[in-house]
Amino acid sequence: MLLEKDTILAHNETRMHRHHQVVAPFRDNFEKFEKIIELLTRFQVAIPSWALGTGGTRFGRFPGKGEPGSLEEKLEDVGLLHQLNCNSGAISLHIPWDIPESPDRIRSQAEALGIRFDAVNSNTFQDQADQALSYKFGSLQHVDKAVRQQAIQHNIEVIEHGKALGSKSLTVWLSDGSCFPGQLNFRKAFQRTLEGLQEIYASLPADWKMFVEYKAFEPNFYSMSVGDWGQSLLYAQKLGPKAFTLVDLGHHLPNANIEQIVSLLLMEGKLGGFHFNDSKYGDDDLTVGSINPYQLFLIFHELVEGMNARGMHHATDLGWMIDASHNVKDPLEDLLQSVEAILIAYTQALLVDAEALSAAQQQNDVALCQELLQEAFRTDVRPIVAEARLRAGGALQPLQLYRESNVRRALTGHRRSGKLATGL
Amino acid sequence: MLLEKDTILAHNETRMHRHHQVVAPFRDNFEKFEKIIELLTRFQVAIPSWALGTGGTRFGRFPGKGEPGSLEEKLEDVGLLHQLNCNSGAISLHIPWDIPESPDRIRSQAEALGIRFDAVNSNTFQDQADQALSYKFGSLQHVDKAVRQQAIQHNIEVIEHGKALGSKSLTVWLSDGSCFPGQLNFRKAFQRTLEGLQEIYASLPADWKMFVEYKAFEPNFYSMSVGDWGQSLLYAQKLGPKAFTLVDLGHHLPNANIEQIVSLLLMEGKLGGFHFNDSKYGDDDLTVGSINPYQLFLIFHELVEGMNARGMHHATDLGWMIDASHNVKDPLEDLLQSVEAILIAYTQALLVDAEALSAAQQQNDVALCQELLQEAFRTDVRPIVAEARLRAGGALQPLQLYRESNVRRALTGHRRSGKLATGL
Amino acid sequence: MLLEKDTILAHNETRMHRHHQVVAPFRDNFEKFEKIIELLTRFQVAIPSWALGTGGTRFGRFPGKGEPGSLEEKLEDVGLLHQLNCNSGAISLHIPWDIPESPDRIRSQAEALGIRFDAVNSNTFQDQADQALSYKFGSLQHVDKAVRQQAIQHNIEVIEHGKALGSKSLTVWLSDGSCFPGQLNFRKAFQRTLEGLQEIYASLPADWKMFVEYKAFEPNFYSMSVGDWGQSLLYAQKLGPKAFTLVDLGHHLPNANIEQIVSLLLMEGKLGGFHFNDSKYGDDDLTVGSINPYQLFLIFHELVEGMNARGMHHATDLGWMIDASHNVKDPLEDLLQSVEAILIAYTQALLVDAEALSAAQQQNDVALCQELLQEAFRTDVRPIVAEARLRAGGALQPLQLYRESNVRRALTGHRRSGKLATGL
Amino acid sequence: MLLEKDTILAHNETRMHRHHQVVAPFRDNFEKFEKIIELLTRFQVAIPSWALGTGGTRFGRFPGKGEPGSLEEKLEDVGLLHQLNCNSGAISLHIPWDIPESPDRIRSQAEALGIRFDAVNSNTFQDQADQALSYKFGSLQHVDKAVRQQAIQHNIEVIEHGKALGSKSLTVWLSDGSCFPGQLNFRKAFQRTLEGLQEIYASLPADWKMFVEYKAFEPNFYSMSVGDWGQSLLYAQKLGPKAFTLVDLGHHLPNANIEQIVSLLLMEGKLGGFHFNDSKYGDDDLTVGSINPYQLFLIFHELVEGMNARGMHHATDLGWMIDASHNVKDPLEDLLQSVEAILIAYTQALLVDAEALSAAQQQNDVALCQELLQEAFRTDVRPIVAEARLRAGGALQPLQLYRESNVRRALTGHRRSGKLATGL
Repeated sequence: MLLEKDTILAHNETRMHRHHQVVAPFRDNFEKFEKIIELLTRFQVAIPSWALGTGGTRFGRFPGKGEPGSLEEKLEDVGLLHQLNCNSGAISLHIPWDIPESPDRIRSQAEALGIRFDAVNSNTFQDQADQALSYKFGSLQHVDKAVRQQAIQHNIEVIEHGKALGSKSLTVWLSDGSCFPGQLNFRKAFQRTLEGLQEIYASLPADWKMFVEYKAFEPNFYSMSVGDWGQSLLYAQKLGPKAFTLVDLGHHLPNANIEQIVSLLLMEGKLGGFHFNDSKYGDDDLTVGSINPYQLFLIFHELVEGMNARGMHHATDLGWMIDASHNVKDPLEDLLQSVEAILIAYTQALLVDAEALSAAQQQNDVALCQELLQEAFRTDVRPIVAEARLRAGGALQPLQLYRESNVRRALTGHRRSGKLATGL
Repeated sequence: MLLEKDTILAHNETRMHRHHQVVAPFRDNFEKFEKIIELLTRFQVAIPSWALGTGGTRFGRFPGKGEPGSLEEKLEDVGLLHQLNCNSGAISLHIPWDIPESPDRIRSQAEALGIRFDAVNSNTFQDQADQALSYKFGSLQHVDKAVRQQAIQHNIEVIEHGKALGSKSLTVWLSDGSCFPGQLNFRKAFQRTLEGLQEIYASLPADWKMFVEYKAFEPNFYSMSVGDWGQSLLYAQKLGPKAFTLVDLGHHLPNANIEQIVSLLLMEGKLGGFHFNDSKYGDDDLTVGSINPYQLFLIFHELVEGMNARGMHHATDLGWMIDASHNVKDPLEDLLQSVEAILIAYTQALLVDAEALSAAQQQNDVALCQELLQEAFRTDVRPIVAEARLRAGGALQPLQLYRESNVRRALTGHRRSGKLATGL
Repeated sequence: MLLEKDTILAHNETRMHRHHQVVAPFRDNFEKFEKIIELLTRFQVAIPSWALGTGGTRFGRFPGKGEPGSLEEKLEDVGLLHQLNCNSGAISLHIPWDIPESPDRIRSQAEALGIRFDAVNSNTFQDQADQALSYKFGSLQHVDKAVRQQAIQHNIEVIEHGKALGSKSLTVWLSDGSCFPGQLNFRKAFQRTLEGLQEIYASLPADWKMFVEYKAFEPNFYSMSVGDWGQSLLYAQKLGPKAFTLVDLGHHLPNANIEQIVSLLLMEGKLGGFHFNDSKYGDDDLTVGSINPYQLFLIFHELVEGMNARGMHHATDLGWMIDASHNVKDPLEDLLQSVEAILIAYTQALLVDAEALSAAQQQNDVALCQELLQEAFRTDVRPIVAEARLRAGGALQPLQLYRESNVRRALTGHRRSGKLATGL
Repeated sequence: MLLEKDTILAHNETRMHRHHQVVAPFRDNFEKFEKIIELLTRFQVAIPSWALGTGGTRFGRFPGKGEPGSLEEKLEDVGLLHQLNCNSGAISLHIPWDIPESPDRIRSQAEALGIRFDAVNSNTFQDQADQALSYKFGSLQHVDKAVRQQAIQHNIEVIEHGKALGSKSLTVWLSDGSCFPGQLNFRKAFQRTLEGLQEIYASLPADWKMFVEYKAFEPNFYSMSVGDWGQSLLYAQKLGPKAFTLVDLGHHLPNANIEQIVSLLLMEGKLGGFHFNDSKYGDDDLTVGSINPYQLFLIFHELVEGMNARGMHHATDLGWMIDASHNVKDPLEDLLQSVEAILIAYTQALLVDAEALSAAQQQNDVALCQELLQEAFRTDVRPIVAEARLRAGGALQPLQLYRESNVRRALTGHRRSGKLATGL
């Protein structure tokens, strides 16, 4: 369901006076204000189809209500998010969960909602009902060539689905690995995985990218066959210019310096994109910015710095996606909070005085370097983010409007319960 | 299914010569050999009913074949394990998964197999089909008194089931906690939880123990309401003399010194028992001793030392249980490996020259302290463990016999597929 | 050296117009503005004497210039900090590094500077030149009673020094522990340590507190004899009502939820105070708020909530101290940044709408709980902090004024190089 | 000092009967017994010159007695170790600590002792007394070209010293990095570091290797400019065929799977060598095998497997070195324990039935894979290690002989106290 245009206008109207008050100091004092608004407006974060329903853990899942049961309903939900914040104009599909019956109809629906199809995701971490061979012991790493071929074939089909919808990238996340010492020959597992990726790569259209996602652990608990950025980069180097590393913020060992990884991957021209979320312990898949918002800012600081240095286009040269699991929140509320957190961090990063920072670094003036970053981070940039949204036609306060409009209640009313999105 | 007695005898026969060769040096040179054999024979590790089937992760589950579908079949499986290794003479049930239709019949079956009923486990981390109120936001910590009462009532019912079977302890593991900063008032959550535990404690028979299990994270990813040994001990102190802390080896933050925790809990008279498993990252629930067998040995070293110092009975004064999840192995094989690893570590700990160690500690002779521990750990004690098994009527090599006997194939033949144990 | 009063006035003058602009929205819209200003004004963070010089690592130390070489010079430095920010009106001394030749003269100097003597710290982690017995294998845990007595005696002397200066608390941080499995009998080490603490406790004046600090690792790398909050609490429970746990933010295992520990210690009436710093890996002793400012805010949120619930006085019922090591920054700049970060976090915590949060918690409205915390955290409260400082007679921008005044250059000029503070 | 040859013979004599008993089963039953003995005999672990004295932490150092004060005395100590275990026939020097006055004389002394010069180590993590520019803000990463040139020049001098002694490799460990967000531009730091390494590489003799060591943290606590194996590999790739990654076991984030890293670096032909030690929390530099001996075995398993697969020579194609810090043990005892632990792990790895393991992996027989590894690990291989030592002329029990011979007392007698090795 979409809101009435008037509903948004009315929402904004009542907040407009206050908004003008708080945005004025930025508009009046910040030289780059208009530039930032422009960058924010263009910045679109893809919503993963599987994040529209309640997720769970191995211990259980506590489903919510009114969750989408079809691809059409998932698109609807993303459409609503995008209507509210104007920064969610893309969806990332997961095959086989999201195979469209009619790609054309789905494409039309998406266009009407202003939604683009971001990376398509393959799934070789579960066995599907009609699947010939099991992925219990891995997919592309599997010792049995037939299983590897099945996984390769699946990925090629995912590309086909993506082509039909206008997607331009494939995200390969492999849960492959081992649970016990001795289970795998690491070298051979790497080489088999590489061969599989090469076959998939060969099927990639010329203007597509392949994202090789890494993860330190889970669902395998001893080793992962694409376990860290070093391994992902090795694969990407060997695959070729269309292969890139994808960084999921929750896929690292404790205390990893993710922002440094981001910077070095950009340096190598091999950073492909992001799966945003937050975490305290492992791949907790919490709301973006809910645990360590300063880290998120530091990552965006590296992104802004590194993309500018390479002349990259912030809005489109990387894939931006949320990948969270909403176990105790309304998924749409969680996604609104996540997108807001991302835009706040991005805006703060854009506020950093890059020239002064560079000069302070050159002087080893560490205290000043910190001051310059914290000056940006401590700034309450929510008015800037709201202004960009306002100009794009969105709501000044998306989450509040969502709540006031009783969207979930309405969805619960007209959606069949039991038709639940697959949440991870 | 049980093996024919002759099958075991035949298995042992072919290995007897070699066994005598390797056990002789121990028998001849170790003063405490007979004492160790006796301790090993009495030592029984409880098998959790839920570990008899294939477990999974939030990403998927790849079930195996021939898994038990009823409590009777679960008992059968434990009976087989116990027949093979003579150290698995107890089962730990999980309510509501294992509610017996006829407690008397189950009790008879267990007696015939030489199986005792260890701690009963309550479950407030999932919603059951017929459950009035949801545990989505916790059970004993819940802000709604009605939910808390439901959870209390459930635990009291679990005690009743346990009484009917002859169990003598209740394990309370609470998945309660929060996923986001602000979600909980930690203090009030603690106090509500304490009140709930107090009500349950009040229903505990005089000769029962209550084990309060702690866990650092998962399925909540920001806080856990019984998150570490310090919190568990606080609850146990406030509850009274029948309340104890239960240590699950996988429930700690990275790098925790578990053996020190064990020692201090023993010192305080508040160590209740163990959930054995192994892990590299979090609560990975891997086979005991598969990742860090030296740590397992060090834990047993503290147990032996601390129990001796308190005059405790190794076999019965603590609860010994495996709690693992078998995602890529045959569950029965995994359990055989786990029990073997536990007995090896226990035997090694019994071999430590306590007097010499104490003297070396008194001299700050750190190198010698290490030598004394490693002398025990480096000793290949498998012949001792096998000898104890042999005398008790078990198999010299339980896993090999299990394999040679094609047990799993037989089970697969006569058990309905789809009747699967709930594995975590 | 102190700045001329006119210097501060001039500094403020040029920034006053801008300050009034930014503080006005808070003053006009926030009901609790004056209350917050009052709380901030009273809030004093103790500066540790050893943080006034450049610290180092085991790999090396790169000293700075103009560092204090005597207790008098250290007091001078704290006096300057307090003059600048009006929130550093206390110093924490370390014995034997800071034994005053004339306590009376030192006391007079401190009074003139508005500086109070916070907790005194004992040192049993190093051997002093004139020391009879070595702490190589621990102090209060030592197997040799004579070493334990020496450590006890030292702590009693530290109390005497503190009494002479008007201090009211003793901080005991024990580096005791072990580097190798087997080195220590954990239980006996605990008991010996407890006995030592009891003797020291017996020497504590009636109106004093004893802070028992815990640390997970370093300088011992296998176990620590006061290793976590659970152990510290056990000691404090056994010692009595004047014993409390002290929380150093860098003394935890990876991913620990420190704010929950804070809340529970407050609940138990056993939270004594803080050593503030920040860290990414271990006890990194970085500038407060430089790595994870949201965590700092969450800790202050628990403090405000918990202290209010117990009717505690924010300014004085806990010990507030910085404990950082400045390896690559001017120590005074680092300390100014640290105090600023603490005050920002405290102010943000005071801004949290406690009533609304409590109501949202009661509704399990997790998204709203997060919004309420983040509303406070995202607010740029620097104007409030500056206003409190301004009213107290401090500088609007302490760090900038420190830099403009070329303090370090002046100190370098009139202090002997080579007279270096001991930095950790 | 060396022991009399007769002393060793006498030591062995009294243990020979027992040794023959325990080694016989291996000699008689293991086909590859002689092959293993040969491999063990050739395997030499380099002793780092700085590990011959007592190390410390930033909190203090508690020196021992009789430590070497000159390079000659360090060689003596290694000579003694090698005499005892016949597996320590190499020394690794640290410049400027170990600059020989007369390389020829030192070379002769080493030859007489059967000691080879392993990798030479540069030091840019400390400022030396006569040093023009400071490394406070890094060396090869430094923003100031003059500092970088100084560091480059130092490394080139280190190569010269190495050439004079017959060394064939340079180990570059850079403590470069940053302590605070913003301090460094990661990309530029990487590029400056790379340029420096390239200049050093250009000075490398044709038959030399350059080892690029990585470390996750310490002494920098936010980022390290060679922070993980991925970064080290990037440098090594860009430098050329003589550049390799060096793995120090303590230089990883918590829970890292080091054995997988080893396997992949071998696959890439870029594994250069090892710094052996053990750790629980960080770079604890504990005795090898004292915390997690199974991990050490798993690493050797990958080494044996991977080196065999590449046709590499176990003894010489990688650099084997201990890098530990002995804070509470006699350094020579610690080193004897470390070498013993390494040889045990190596022997166990050689015992693994590679063919059976490969077959089990091919069958996804995970339980069997584990059995095969643990079969080797649980074997008490100390008799094999002792046999190799015996044949090479060493002592059956080196540590015991060292103690019986009162070596430390003798060294304490004839070495000036206060002449202390630099221990890290």
